[in-house]
Amino acid sequence: MQKRRLKKYAKLIVKCGLNVKRGQEVIIRCGLDQPEFVTMVVEECYKAGAERVKVEWSYQPVTKLAYEHRSLKSLSDFTEVERAEWQRKVDKLTCLLWLDSDDPDGLAGTDSEKIAQANVARYPFIKPFREALNGKYQWCIAAVPGKEWAKKIFPGLSASAAVEKLWEAILTASRVDDDPIAAWKAHNENLARHCNLLNGFRLVSLEYKSSNGTDFKVGLNPVGRFVGGGETTLSKKIYYNPNIPSEEVFTSPMRGMAEGTVVATKPLSYQGKLIENFRIRFKDGKAVEVHAEKNQDVLEKMISMDEGAAYLGEVALIAYDSPINNSGILFYNTLFDENASCHLALGKGFNECVQGYETMTTEECIKAGINESMIHVDFMMGSKDMDIIGVTADGKRVQIFKNGNWAI
Amino acid sequence: MQKRRLKKYAKLIVKCGLNVKRGQEVIIRCGLDQPEFVTMVVEECYKAGAERVKVEWSYQPVTKLAYEHRSLKSLSDFTEVERAEWQRKVDKLTCLLWLDSDDPDGLAGTDSEKIAQANVARYPFIKPFREALNGKYQWCIAAVPGKEWAKKIFPGLSASAAVEKLWEAILTASRVDDDPIAAWKAHNENLARHCNLLNGFRLVSLEYKSSNGTDFKVGLNPVGRFVGGGETTLSKKIYYNPNIPSEEVFTSPMRGMAEGTVVATKPLSYQGKLIENFRIRFKDGKAVEVHAEKNQDVLEKMISMDEGAAYLGEVALIAYDSPINNSGILFYNTLFDENASCHLALGKGFNECVQGYETMTTEECIKAGINESMIHVDFMMGSKDMDIIGVTADGKRVQIFKNGNWAI
Repeated sequence: MQKRRLKKYAKLIVKCGLNVKRGQEVIIRCGLDQPEFVTMVVEECYKAGAERVKVEWSYQPVTKLAYEHRSLKSLSDFTEVERAEWQRKVDKLTCLLWLDSDDPDGLAGTDSEKIAQANVARYPFIKPFREALNGKYQWCIAAVPGKEWAKKIFPGLSASAAVEKLWEAILTASRVDDDPIAAWKAHNENLARHCNLLNGFRLVSLEYKSSNGTDFKVGLNPVGRFVGGGETTLSKKIYYNPNIPSEEVFTSPMRGMAEGTVVATKPLSYQGKLIENFRIRFKDGKAVEVHAEKNQDVLEKMISMDEGAAYLGEVALIAYDSPINNSGILFYNTLFDENASCHLALGKGFNECVQGYETMTTEECIKAGINESMIHVDFMMGSKDMDIIGVTADGKRVQIFKNGNWAI
Repeated sequence: MQKRRLKKYAKLIVKCGLNVKRGQEVIIRCGLDQPEFVTMVVEECYKAGAERVKVEWSYQPVTKLAYEHRSLKSLSDFTEVERAEWQRKVDKLTCLLWLDSDDPDGLAGTDSEKIAQANVARYPFIKPFREALNGKYQWCIAAVPGKEWAKKIFPGLSASAAVEKLWEAILTASRVDDDPIAAWKAHNENLARHCNLLNGFRLVSLEYKSSNGTDFKVGLNPVGRFVGGGETTLSKKIYYNPNIPSEEVFTSPMRGMAEGTVVATKPLSYQGKLIENFRIRFKDGKAVEVHAEKNQDVLEKMISMDEGAAYLGEVALIAYDSPINNSGILFYNTLFDENASCHLALGKGFNECVQGYETMTTEECIKAGINESMIHVDFMMGSKDMDIIGVTADGKRVQIFKNGNWAI
């Protein structure tokens, strides 16, 4: 990929994704696949005035060995080093950037049960830090091509051709053309207009129907709101874009109100394993039955991580004719695939989907109906012929989606 | 390089270099150049019973940006995260492995003065941890090829051919042939035999002469001793090899007793910068005058890092006909070049070069004449026609080296 375009992408991530401000600290988490691009991002961070930029490199085969060889006790350990790292994030409101390039199947064969148990054991130590950070700091997830990931998407190509093609797909989906920052400004304004329209209807539920078997109803929160695109940090009021790309308009539904069956329309990569051809049945808001043709055990483990893992945290609307879906590429990566299709997320909901969340505690948001969990996992369920009806408090039915696309 | 030979090297590093024991933690510091080999080392650590293996990857261009853009104040900071990391090393006696692959010139152009000042500011925080760890834990420095490093050594070759040739040179120098572990056992026994011989002479000084201009005398410690090859940790009595390869027999000289001029015979890479064609004049044990054709400022900065940086911490004897020197390769890397040539080190001396150090504090070792400093930097001065005479307490003169090689 030409260096000039990559520099634009690096700048987009730093100025529009994280929106790094003078004196801030930045942590970048990434694989070993694109060190030259990571260096460009680091340089843009310093140009934006960052005081310190730390790159935390990781390598899936090493992670896999840890999962295989370390005891549950050792994996469950929350060390003083980690405590200090979390505390520094809280003190400094460190910007956090993930540059994902992982092989979606890179942890296949590891013991899901052990990893899940370790995560459960560690969560009580992490939770207070997460809550202290919630809404207060800038973060962003973007992607760069990894060789294994690219070969999975384009199996017919050589590794280097596949990586080049994945670069093209990532940059196109991320609007990295002539002036990416201007393009994102316009895009954020469009998403905000759609949110305003939806919020104006004051919907109490959404009803989904598709010929693939999806027949599902989810309750919305009377004090909820739809959001999309950029967000603003609570304390410093810094506008940033947590996902590049992002096409979705989403809200957190009312906990306990979901009925019927949802059929997934894309595979889900969870903890390095691919869950394929699955469906989930909900009753009283809870996933009570799951079927998957591949890795059903991973899916079952996922929804039993904690009490809230079987409840919904997110409802997101994306036109079937979205740019990413129209690319015809299945990315095997949530950041992209979630922006190609209407989706739901199991687990934790978002405080910012409650009106007035700026002055509410997390406890108050949970009381208002926002789900709480240690997980938040998106899965895709949009389809070509999906219809979505919104029902208002006074029983009025509004067609929101018709044949997979926006009807409003 | 064939995988089978690399696996032997990985096993040598883990079993003979670090000698990892069941339940231990290991930290591996390395560049991004050889992730597959690093994975082999991680796997060998787990096979040896390691409880946790952490890989701390780094990338010189990112380090360089930090040195360029971060303020002196920020670079001087010693964070609570670092404090927790050091404390864990002290608590766990974590094994530490450096797999060096850096470009010896990779930090060229950065501000030596700023980096030196930051290191000076941080040292008081690090020193107590270093002292608490001194002699108590297993550590090892070994090398793997980096592309830039390999191209510097073999400028006429393509990058991949240069990397392959550097692999061959590293593995040969490290005795990775049929049975590397048996070869290292025999090699350690040979080095120990040479030490016993030297210690039997009870030398008070060494006098160096060479046609290149070296004319130099260094005082030895009456309670000193020569060591070489493997070492044994103080608390747990674990035998390990801190350098792979290692050809040297060395001691720490008597602080304050060094006179005359030493001419370096190989360039010195210090903090990513190459100091070339230099000489140092000593008076009363101290480097009082330096000349370098390239990067003299870096050398001057180095010896003024603190009071002890201009005094000697090490005197090492290696035959001119050493396997590494005979390879004819100039590695631009101290780990190899120091094992190709007699050398000295400026800065910190070694407690283990004092008889009875096992029951002595660092303070007591310093009082006994061991130099103290935040730096320890080797530089090469062995030459083809170097003669070394040892003088005993009763004035007897023993020829130790004749024409660059052992005479005993």
